[in-house]
Amino acid sequence: MEMQEQKPFVIGLDLGGTNAVFGIVDQRGQVLATNSIKTGAYKTVDDFVAAGVEALKPIVAKVGGIGQIKAMGIGAPNGNFYRGTIEFAPNLAWGHDGVVPLAEMFSKKLNIPVGLTNDANAAAIGEMQYGVARGMKNFIMITLGTGVGSGIVVDGKMVYGSDGFAGELGHVVMVRGEEGRSCGCGRTGCLEAYCSATGVARTAREFLEKSDEPSLLRDMKAEEITSLDVSIAASKGDKLALEVYAFTGDMLGQACADFATFSSPEAFIFFGGLTKAGDLIMKPIIESYEKHALKIFKGKPKFLISSLDDAAAAVLGASAIGWEL
Amino acid sequence: MEMQEQKPFVIGLDLGGTNAVFGIVDQRGQVLATNSIKTGAYKTVDDFVAAGVEALKPIVAKVGGIGQIKAMGIGAPNGNFYRGTIEFAPNLAWGHDGVVPLAEMFSKKLNIPVGLTNDANAAAIGEMQYGVARGMKNFIMITLGTGVGSGIVVDGKMVYGSDGFAGELGHVVMVRGEEGRSCGCGRTGCLEAYCSATGVARTAREFLEKSDEPSLLRDMKAEEITSLDVSIAASKGDKLALEVYAFTGDMLGQACADFATFSSPEAFIFFGGLTKAGDLIMKPIIESYEKHALKIFKGKPKFLISSLDDAAAAVLGASAIGWEL
Repeated sequence: MEMQEQKPFVIGLDLGGTNAVFGIVDQRGQVLATNSIKTGAYKTVDDFVAAGVEALKPIVAKVGGIGQIKAMGIGAPNGNFYRGTIEFAPNLAWGHDGVVPLAEMFSKKLNIPVGLTNDANAAAIGEMQYGVARGMKNFIMITLGTGVGSGIVVDGKMVYGSDGFAGELGHVVMVRGEEGRSCGCGRTGCLEAYCSATGVARTAREFLEKSDEPSLLRDMKAEEITSLDVSIAASKGDKLALEVYAFTGDMLGQACADFATFSSPEAFIFFGGLTKAGDLIMKPIIESYEKHALKIFKGKPKFLISSLDDAAAAVLGASAIGWEL
Repeated sequence: MEMQEQKPFVIGLDLGGTNAVFGIVDQRGQVLATNSIKTGAYKTVDDFVAAGVEALKPIVAKVGGIGQIKAMGIGAPNGNFYRGTIEFAPNLAWGHDGVVPLAEMFSKKLNIPVGLTNDANAAAIGEMQYGVARGMKNFIMITLGTGVGSGIVVDGKMVYGSDGFAGELGHVVMVRGEEGRSCGCGRTGCLEAYCSATGVARTAREFLEKSDEPSLLRDMKAEEITSLDVSIAASKGDKLALEVYAFTGDMLGQACADFATFSSPEAFIFFGGLTKAGDLIMKPIIESYEKHALKIFKGKPKFLISSLDDAAAAVLGASAIGWEL
């Protein structure tokens, strides 16, 4: 009987609404090679998978061929870990109105095991294996991007829940009733409607309309303001932009105070574009948390920013699922 | 070497603000004997423990003496599983402003292992071992009593969090800002302020004041109305009392819609006095949940009432901790 040698690499796929980034990752978390395709350039999932397999060929060849690859992990919006499916993902042209068995489709084409989870869970797994969450048993990862996602780790394990969809904290309702902002999910008042990149830009437009305060943001067309513009203005000391961060941080802090009652995490870890603002966003979050948290949770959790490089983190996180298969 | 025989019984202590109920439980979940003392009749925790040990003597003797007892489990407000302590419990005269190492104190007096957790966690463990949650891996227990408590089970395990205090869902904020009702925790707008027994009575008083609607509850002094009175009136078809249940259920349903985003449980299980109203409270909860839940969580979780006898459930739950020690 021959000993089977451990295959040295896994593939990670970070599947975003815009780009699908493939990476080859080794056991130490080095991303050795990457390639990407445009997620939205394909009308059907079959076309997308075929293009993905083509994109993988050169980077797989670089590390010695598919025989060197143990497995593939995919991080995707609305990804279901138990079933390896993407379900009703609003931002995917070929995935928004049905259940796409993406893990199985890649597995059949590549002849390797393929696992899939939602993108925020993948980020949390990556953080646990390679980032600031190393050694932590209880933490909540909050991803602040186009949407607001989350990955919850309890007692060292990802929380997937009864159906694989646990950890959708971006859709906790923060403003109830008619006052709530409309959210991409079709409901109103969700955390995501306020604290995603588009939510932050919307807050800026609302603040510009409500006040006469001078602001660098008034030099632009209101409808063209992005969260990046808010960030640039805030970093220059723009008062209105700072107020936008104070508002956003206040809401995130209140949300974290609620989340603490659930799993009392050791840390809240933030990831994504908004964290580039550093203390400008983290200080309001922490102040708001400490003001609103239940007494027994005050002063306890750490508030951290992901230590992983943005571009690599999502691929790393996705690849980490591959090691566990 | 002699085989050590498994001791056949455990002690369960359901420690409430009013009564402390001790029970002897066998491996099939039969409560063989109980005794109780008044929690508040003792000025110090030493006096309380001494009285507890006295109360245990006759019931322990009934089953053959302390040699037959494997361990003791305690369910207590603000109980900490990791440390075996009760911490800042507002309703305990001898426990409200400090950390009481109750598990250790009983253990020293009785010479058996003693474990402790909060009362809602104990109820969840009891439900998992003996009740409607048998075989479930993911569920949330919500206790509707003097307060609103919760016990969260993920992947077959109690969620204790980083510090042993996870699962305080009664203190998720449902009404933000100045409108929120004051809560016993010192903050405002908590679920508990609306959906506990006192919360329900308060809603009834508010509704009586706001409207001219005839109601059986108008025959009583407003300040003397309890949740039991609301329940009796509702069961007679009293319209205002039914509106109180509709309001309470609506809020619980919205809360459950938020909780689903966290751990996507297979079931929400309700326990406590308010559940005596049966469909009068469960129907509004389910309707509200289905109206407010995120699409992927609609129609999924079961909404159940605990199948355990009230009096026994808390003791059983507490005793279940004993088996795990």
